[in-house]
Amino acid sequence: MPNKEEIVNFFKRLQDIICVELEIADGKGKFQEDVWTHKTGGGGRTRLIQNGNILEKGGVNFSAVEGSLGEDMKKALKINEDADFFATGISIVQHPENPMVPIIHMNVRYFELSNGTYWFGGGIDLTPHYLNENQASWFHKQLKAVCDKHGVNYYSEYKKKADDYFYLPHREETRGVGGIFFDHLNEKSLGISKADIFDFIKDLGNEFAPIYTHLMTLNADIPFTERNKSWQYLRRGRYVEFNLVWDRGTKFGLVTGGRTESILMSLPPQAQWEYCHEVEPNSEEEKTQNALKKGIDWII
Amino acid sequence: MPNKEEIVNFFKRLQDIICVELEIADGKGKFQEDVWTHKTGGGGRTRLIQNGNILEKGGVNFSAVEGSLGEDMKKALKINEDADFFATGISIVQHPENPMVPIIHMNVRYFELSNGTYWFGGGIDLTPHYLNENQASWFHKQLKAVCDKHGVNYYSEYKKKADDYFYLPHREETRGVGGIFFDHLNEKSLGISKADIFDFIKDLGNEFAPIYTHLMTLNADIPFTERNKSWQYLRRGRYVEFNLVWDRGTKFGLVTGGRTESILMSLPPQAQWEYCHEVEPNSEEEKTQNALKKGIDWII
Repeated sequence: MPNKEEIVNFFKRLQDIICVELEIADGKGKFQEDVWTHKTGGGGRTRLIQNGNILEKGGVNFSAVEGSLGEDMKKALKINEDADFFATGISIVQHPENPMVPIIHMNVRYFELSNGTYWFGGGIDLTPHYLNENQASWFHKQLKAVCDKHGVNYYSEYKKKADDYFYLPHREETRGVGGIFFDHLNEKSLGISKADIFDFIKDLGNEFAPIYTHLMTLNADIPFTERNKSWQYLRRGRYVEFNLVWDRGTKFGLVTGGRTESILMSLPPQAQWEYCHEVEPNSEEEKTQNALKKGIDWII
Repeated sequence: MPNKEEIVNFFKRLQDIICVELEIADGKGKFQEDVWTHKTGGGGRTRLIQNGNILEKGGVNFSAVEGSLGEDMKKALKINEDADFFATGISIVQHPENPMVPIIHMNVRYFELSNGTYWFGGGIDLTPHYLNENQASWFHKQLKAVCDKHGVNYYSEYKKKADDYFYLPHREETRGVGGIFFDHLNEKSLGISKADIFDFIKDLGNEFAPIYTHLMTLNADIPFTERNKSWQYLRRGRYVEFNLVWDRGTKFGLVTGGRTESILMSLPPQAQWEYCHEVEPNSEEEKTQNALKKGIDWII
């Protein structure tokens, strides 16, 4: 049965591999690392890439923290009893310079309590500034292939959860074309062993670099205009709205005293807001806007 | 005793006056109005000024909405019983072009339930990109003068509440130099008549235009550099963080189905985030940063 050390070691190696692969695909940007410690125990390795050929700002963050559950954490996790916790994971958000390259996010994490409870959670989702249906479909097919290796219902179930999670109720729109999202995975909820669940997490984590470097390479040389940049800044504004208003991970981190600069690395380098912005009829912006809804079947 | 109609009429007239005064001080920008209706009853007049001589983006919004308390509202207001509500108020945020002009915010509001409960609430606070101690002090003195007309403890009490409210725990900094903040004002909490409380609200509301047009005029012609603009964008990023993560009014509006574009008019036209930004020692930015803390006595 995989223990904390094994899981931590996998996440650390995964962080290393993803950073190397992103640097190679970018061709210029290099990750800078900040090592930090958490006040109650443990810490993290925050890695930031900036002003690359393709990646304008992105984080690949590892952390492994532990301590006693504080009141804020107990409330956020809906746990009543006192216990020690251990939490480790990787969080990634990449904001590309070229609006034709999509934003991507992935998080994989493991949580355990001193009473023996544990769970895995995570998700990955793609936010194109400009929709490319073939690529959105390809993205979902890669995720489905990973899911199908581990459970026949995983893709359909976790794809639906992603539609519901990566959603801005106040805009009535999804953050992008979705992906998969899951939480509280353990023997009890899935009926398979901890080792098998960890294998699913590993397969998903290992899929990140091939998926995103492919999308970087496909789109990074597409020419773009000022109009495309303006639209990108508005879409980044929506990304900020989702992360600060609705994302449970961000909120959890900020209210439980996580490292602010690591948590908010998910924010874009800049964003814009325009009152009642309307997309032009029959434009590429309108096509993208129209795809920001739940329930689209991308496996076609 | 002031009734709903009287309060609504005051807020509408106040909106008119403030818009006219801001237009005169700006000299170029004109407010555009959108009239909207709320799904359960009532509606609002959203007014936006953009690309003026001084005001880059600002809203002066009036609303008066009513209906039955939904589950989201009951939860947010901590009310258990079913009741009809009526809520009216004015919300203002102004983002100036010149970083030497401070951002300002004011909200004054009235809430009543069909069971007879009512309360007034509100606040005003100043967010300089660059601190001018004399002006921060002058601002607080104007607020103290309004407060002192109505209650000897109002200023000290509401100034402290503003320090606590306009605060970013995850940054351990205040939004700006504070101001005053109050909520749940009624006969029971204050021991004075509804008419007297309404007089306080009126006096505060009427003070907005003189205060801010004075600060606009004082600072709008100060030269500024690219460095000043960069710092302004970072400070605007913090403004976004406060409004989307911590501001109860914004959250309340977004989760109870308020008009998104009116609520988010408080966001700046653009904002930036920079990982682990550090201010230069002994700079004006550092001086400002150092003033972003609770408990500073500005009445000197």
